[in-house]
Amino acid sequence: MDLKSYLQSNIDRIDQALQQYLPEESVLPQSLHKAMRYSIFAGGKRLRPILAIASCEAVSGNPDHVLPAACALEMIHTYSLIHDDLPAMDDDDFRRGRPTNHKVFGEANAILAGDALLTEAFRLLADPRYTQADPQTVLQVIEIAARSAGSQGMVGGQAVDMESEGSQIDFPTLEYIHTHKTGALILASVQIGGLLGGAEKGQLACLTRYGEAVGLAFQIADDILDVTGDQTELGKGVGSDQARGKATYPAFMGLREARNRANELCTLAIDSLVEMGEGADPLRLIARYIIDRSN
Amino acid sequence: MDLKSYLQSNIDRIDQALQQYLPEESVLPQSLHKAMRYSIFAGGKRLRPILAIASCEAVSGNPDHVLPAACALEMIHTYSLIHDDLPAMDDDDFRRGRPTNHKVFGEANAILAGDALLTEAFRLLADPRYTQADPQTVLQVIEIAARSAGSQGMVGGQAVDMESEGSQIDFPTLEYIHTHKTGALILASVQIGGLLGGAEKGQLACLTRYGEAVGLAFQIADDILDVTGDQTELGKGVGSDQARGKATYPAFMGLREARNRANELCTLAIDSLVEMGEGADPLRLIARYIIDRSN
Repeated sequence: MDLKSYLQSNIDRIDQALQQYLPEESVLPQSLHKAMRYSIFAGGKRLRPILAIASCEAVSGNPDHVLPAACALEMIHTYSLIHDDLPAMDDDDFRRGRPTNHKVFGEANAILAGDALLTEAFRLLADPRYTQADPQTVLQVIEIAARSAGSQGMVGGQAVDMESEGSQIDFPTLEYIHTHKTGALILASVQIGGLLGGAEKGQLACLTRYGEAVGLAFQIADDILDVTGDQTELGKGVGSDQARGKATYPAFMGLREARNRANELCTLAIDSLVEMGEGADPLRLIARYIIDRSN
Repeated sequence: MDLKSYLQSNIDRIDQALQQYLPEESVLPQSLHKAMRYSIFAGGKRLRPILAIASCEAVSGNPDHVLPAACALEMIHTYSLIHDDLPAMDDDDFRRGRPTNHKVFGEANAILAGDALLTEAFRLLADPRYTQADPQTVLQVIEIAARSAGSQGMVGGQAVDMESEGSQIDFPTLEYIHTHKTGALILASVQIGGLLGGAEKGQLACLTRYGEAVGLAFQIADDILDVTGDQTELGKGVGSDQARGKATYPAFMGLREARNRANELCTLAIDSLVEMGEGADPLRLIARYIIDRSN
């Protein structure tokens, strides 16, 4: 199979679904919906929703049934980017080559657009028009999404990251930041895709190992790209982590060792799927693709 | 029945439950959990959770079954206060007589504490340890909570409020702000309490009329207090709306007419419950109490 066309066809499908799920710009308050849509349609890679869809397919589920939840995960991811870019946080002016949300709509609107996207994600997850699974499973999905995004997940990772900026941190703290800030929502995407695809317990355990490995590998690859990458691939200034005194894997263990670690995690991810058939091929290729960005 | 002791015993019960549901300050990241708890335990009136409990009781439901959802509503309310107080929004230094969250923990932590409280609310709503109703009803509760808090509810009201500051607005815009910014979550609290109490369709319709009326009455009373009240009751500086150029009911129709309007709404709220027995007495007394604060 061709990963590139798999990714592109899913990006199209996700973008179309997001168009449908998000309130139109003409809906009041217009400025708020405009701000929400600006960041949602800013050309993201849609990694989290694609992982949810691919995980659903890996357990022979119907990908249409996971599409709303996949879009909800992208809303959660986008809200976190909007808030991370705020002046009080990372104070970034550009994201994916475009001015950040608060640069275009002002700080108040950016805060509110993030709040609204997070809230809309949960509304969508519970929306009776779109939920196909049994209600008990949908509740489980909501719980996983909220746990992964909350104070002991993504927000927790960002809080520790902010606290640590400019100060010497130890390796466990770096791992905490990476597994929480980025890893948790990636893992949740894989688990949610599996659950809504009807995964059995054993399959869920395999997907969980895959999600953990891929989540950390993705962040290490991002760290590596910050040192070596070009701005287009990264979507932000090269060396910006370093300039900001952020701890990274290459800073801790050198570039070569960081690459080794990412490759090991990639292998671990693929090995986790050994008992799954060719329906899991997209997941396998995505694991490789995540690393290749930084190799 | 004595409203004061009813309110106090419910405040105690809600505070105890929030202590249980929220991660301890010792849980990592400690600074984040400290910030979340600081604002949750800042001496709020717990109006929304109490309305949820009272609505549950009004339809002969078991109040224990609504307690987690009631606490989730308080978390959503508290997150909105933290974000509203931010420098980019209302830029308030004090709330309920104490320094606001960002004054104590810094802007980044305040943004994240708000984000985490909102997320934690949905985690709690879906938490299998606490949900007593059938999963279908729980999903309905989550959808109502998210809709009322989102871009076409509370956050939408705040967005229009921010946009309108310092400029001349018309009466429909003022009503939009009030019914969305404050009214939506109050209405949701009443509806969620009814739903989890097992309300029938007709009872839910009555509760909805009650919730709409009380939600608007509460905000008009708040407007009146801003002109006439003392700082203790209000928890913020008297005249602060005026100073900030915020539109209020008294500014539009004068103090006497605003009071009349609030009283009318209070009567309407109580009349909505005419077919309910004495189990709805707390709701009746709360409607009166909301107005009396400003009379």
